[in-house]
Amino acid sequence: MTKVPEHLVSFASELADAAGFIILNYWRVSGLEIAEKDEAHRAIATSPVTVADRASERAMRDLIAERYPNHGVYGEEFGEERVDAEYVWVLDPIDGTKSFITGKPLFGTLIALLHRGRPVLGCIDQCVLGERWIGANGITLLNGEPVARNSDDCGGKTKLASTIMYATTPHMFKPGFEQARFQELRGKVRRCLYGCDCYAYAIVASGFGAGLVVEAGQSIACLLSPLSVTDT
Amino acid sequence: MTKVPEHLVSFASELADAAGFIILNYWRVSGLEIAEKDEAHRAIATSPVTVADRASERAMRDLIAERYPNHGVYGEEFGEERVDAEYVWVLDPIDGTKSFITGKPLFGTLIALLHRGRPVLGCIDQCVLGERWIGANGITLLNGEPVARNSDDCGGKTKLASTIMYATTPHMFKPGFEQARFQELRGKVRRCLYGCDCYAYAIVASGFGAGLVVEAGQSIACLLSPLSVTDT
Repeated sequence: MTKVPEHLVSFASELADAAGFIILNYWRVSGLEIAEKDEAHRAIATSPVTVADRASERAMRDLIAERYPNHGVYGEEFGEERVDAEYVWVLDPIDGTKSFITGKPLFGTLIALLHRGRPVLGCIDQCVLGERWIGANGITLLNGEPVARNSDDCGGKTKLASTIMYATTPHMFKPGFEQARFQELRGKVRRCLYGCDCYAYAIVASGFGAGLVVEAGQSIACLLSPLSVTDT
Repeated sequence: MTKVPEHLVSFASELADAAGFIILNYWRVSGLEIAEKDEAHRAIATSPVTVADRASERAMRDLIAERYPNHGVYGEEFGEERVDAEYVWVLDPIDGTKSFITGKPLFGTLIALLHRGRPVLGCIDQCVLGERWIGANGITLLNGEPVARNSDDCGGKTKLASTIMYATTPHMFKPGFEQARFQELRGKVRRCLYGCDCYAYAIVASGFGAGLVVEAGQSIACLLSPLSVTDT
């Protein structure tokens, strides 16, 4: 696994700070401007995009351009720049915009770093709760402390029958193959809970008591979890 | 509407403090003792009950017995006492135990006060986030400040088509009548989000951007929302 230099791990935190600073200005304010955009790759027809989403991605991109002008960026709101670079940052400023606009504090800022196309760092930041998970170099930290990840709960050592599974919504799975597979899996786990967005990945990565997240319609965003990094 | 004396509104906060103090000792600890109990009144077969649930209800009951020995209590864990009293407290120490055991901070302590059988006060307390909603005497406060409840978002003045609806899980509705009605309603709203437990009621009561909660299998717990009080 590629060793991530410490200055890049710190920089991921700086990016999350910058995004969170902006996002908090728009948290639970009334009259939030909400645009609807077409997301043809998801079974859910539309997704709200807030001004907070755009402003916070802009702040992160500006920081990257200033500090690491050779690095590439792949952002959910403003697309690709230099994605053939050795290091590429992958940004989703507000994962869970639907949670965000209803004042539910389980959305998150997702930051990943690719090295030659492979994910080597993942960050989930929840700015309202002040919780930041960063996975890199084989360890996941929650606010700087190693998570007490329980190998009985995750890592493939637990039987499905005793596992709690998270999914954002059962409606994200397309009718037919996806729905059938999801329902089959749901029938095999101990319990399926809903509504967490990226926070579900943080819960699983921390070993808090759920062992599995199942989602559909992920694009490059699936690289953004600390889990996928620590499991590499 | 019955005027709730200020000392009883304050006492509701004391109860929430006492419960939260205990619950936080069990938050995200490993090896949490979890019992499964049969909940035949729900479509979901089992529900985890933690030691935190029992200890925090015990603490609230002890406070009530000490301060208001003539008041009745109806608690989720330890049942009824003097429920023919003029004032009866209704307690659910941890609503959303499934969220709780997975380290998801949207569970809540629910406290209601009945006066001659009618709900006159409702409290939702989220001890991890430090958020406390209390509804009484026609007003809902979040941490002591009136909520900026938007009459466009709730109170029956918005068309379903523009409303965001919350439900804990679509599987709480029994096959047949309940499922059919739920799916019909889901088809009429702008969007249906999942996974909030009592926090969804707090979101709606606050006017944060969702206008509706739909649930099934509620017993007396349905009296516990500030919403049902302020709407009386």
